[in-house]
Amino acid sequence: MSQQLAVGIDIGGTNTKFGIVDRRGNILCDGRMLTNKHEDVNAFLDELHGHLSLLITQVGGMENIRGIGVGAPNGNFYTGNIEYAPNLRWKGVIELAKLLEAKFGVPAILTNDANAAALGEFMYGAARSMRDFIVITLGTGVGSGIVANGQLIYGHDGFAGELGHCIVIPGGRLHTGTGARGSLEAYASATGVTNTALEFLASRPDTKSILRDLKKEDINSKTIYEAAMKGDPLAMEVYEFTGKILGEALANFVMFSSPEAIVLFGGLTKAGDLIMKPVREHMEKNLLPIFQNKVKLVFSELQESDAAILGASALAWEMKD
Amino acid sequence: MSQQLAVGIDIGGTNTKFGIVDRRGNILCDGRMLTNKHEDVNAFLDELHGHLSLLITQVGGMENIRGIGVGAPNGNFYTGNIEYAPNLRWKGVIELAKLLEAKFGVPAILTNDANAAALGEFMYGAARSMRDFIVITLGTGVGSGIVANGQLIYGHDGFAGELGHCIVIPGGRLHTGTGARGSLEAYASATGVTNTALEFLASRPDTKSILRDLKKEDINSKTIYEAAMKGDPLAMEVYEFTGKILGEALANFVMFSSPEAIVLFGGLTKAGDLIMKPVREHMEKNLLPIFQNKVKLVFSELQESDAAILGASALAWEMKD
Repeated sequence: MSQQLAVGIDIGGTNTKFGIVDRRGNILCDGRMLTNKHEDVNAFLDELHGHLSLLITQVGGMENIRGIGVGAPNGNFYTGNIEYAPNLRWKGVIELAKLLEAKFGVPAILTNDANAAALGEFMYGAARSMRDFIVITLGTGVGSGIVANGQLIYGHDGFAGELGHCIVIPGGRLHTGTGARGSLEAYASATGVTNTALEFLASRPDTKSILRDLKKEDINSKTIYEAAMKGDPLAMEVYEFTGKILGEALANFVMFSSPEAIVLFGGLTKAGDLIMKPVREHMEKNLLPIFQNKVKLVFSELQESDAAILGASALAWEMKD
Repeated sequence: MSQQLAVGIDIGGTNTKFGIVDRRGNILCDGRMLTNKHEDVNAFLDELHGHLSLLITQVGGMENIRGIGVGAPNGNFYTGNIEYAPNLRWKGVIELAKLLEAKFGVPAILTNDANAAALGEFMYGAARSMRDFIVITLGTGVGSGIVANGQLIYGHDGFAGELGHCIVIPGGRLHTGTGARGSLEAYASATGVTNTALEFLASRPDTKSILRDLKKEDINSKTIYEAAMKGDPLAMEVYEFTGKILGEALANFVMFSSPEAIVLFGGLTKAGDLIMKPVREHMEKNLLPIFQNKVKLVFSELQESDAAILGASALAWEMKD
């Protein structure tokens, strides 16, 4: 039997992960490579083709591959292009789907990384069987994928779901990447959490914290997490503050699409209840009564590295023959 | 030929408007009655039935009526119920679609008033042929109807699209109806505009304004509009302020569903450029570059009273046989 497998590729700022997936969401084999080793996208594709060819041979050859799905920053579902991705070395518009199709001889389809994560949750994760949900990815940046009426929302131009760039505190903290003030990403990303800790350390000189023993450049989302896990009050307050802002933002998102669930995904979720409790509290507080105590707030059930590959591969099943 | 007409009913806080509409959006005949004359919904339906029966006879009888569509505050598409509408005399859950079906013997379908307006724009108005757009109704309250992928977004519970209740200024002005602080409706509704004028009059005692000649209770969205039209600087500043807040909110909505257009509808739009210019300026200023200069910002093309009936009737064409 042929055409029953899909290739999933997740292009991240650092690593590109890839795998071969069956319809049930089993990753039969996978691998990774550095994304930014190659300045030329063709050299990147040559290396990727080499890795994937070995895996494809393992699963019986190209005749078993239905298609290739890719999640990538600023990936546009409609055009198949990566458009002006700030964290990639390939500048401008990269016709990635077209290049992959030429290279592998099967259909390729592309979307942004957060949409791919949403598709992964939809088909294999916490949002199985849901028709309305939102995935928020909390990593280096804050991304989102929105499913309504059982479909991903792409918007008229393929760029829907940039919830990380919603302004949550008008005139608030500067987001150096975009120049905006007070966007969700300025607070709820790894960089945002770090900046909150640095602000707290500066503005509360009398509050003890083990973070004060670190060099400034060693204060990051990982060391803040470790301090909070040891009960450091200032580090815990960083999560409380971040959770409040994220929870208030989620309430606004609920007012938009009234999802059955919001699935949180990515680094920040490792803090567990430290982040989830304030998120839940402040989301509920800001909801109209008709929405209260209805929205499931859950962490992703998928392993992070798997979710990306699964979500990307899920795109291939959606392709029309 | 039968089954080619639909009844559209728009239940508002003051008036209920109804009409008979053909597939092309021609209103063949229409009428209105007071919504809150009857404390009992059955008495309301008896009167409505009387009015509509005359109209239906005019168009050749019930065999020409395919169904009834209703837009109503807190109308739920999934249940066919009006649920806890604050501005209606009928309290709790009213099974309106069921009651109408029993009364008229044809299928009836219900949604909230802003969704009905969005359907009207979709089928007959400014959003014809668009698959992704948002309608914002600016009246006594601020409502919204969101279309994505060519479908109205209802959410998992039928209550999606309450954008008027998004918090735009955390900790901002109290919305007395909901208890929330800083929601869009607290600023961009008729009441919001009035409150802004009262605040400006109090906080800027040295600014001249013809509004100072009025009694406090006579300051409302109508008199503020008239003052602004006469070039009153304080009244014009009210629109500038309202437009800024609305524009910033619209930018956040664009980040969500990346619509081709946002259609503004209702009383506030009468101010024309006075409101549209600041809305456009502050929306664009808050958008990511990938969204800038792309989103059409337009006023509804439908007459307000017609839009409501048309939108409601459009529901009937969506019903499955």
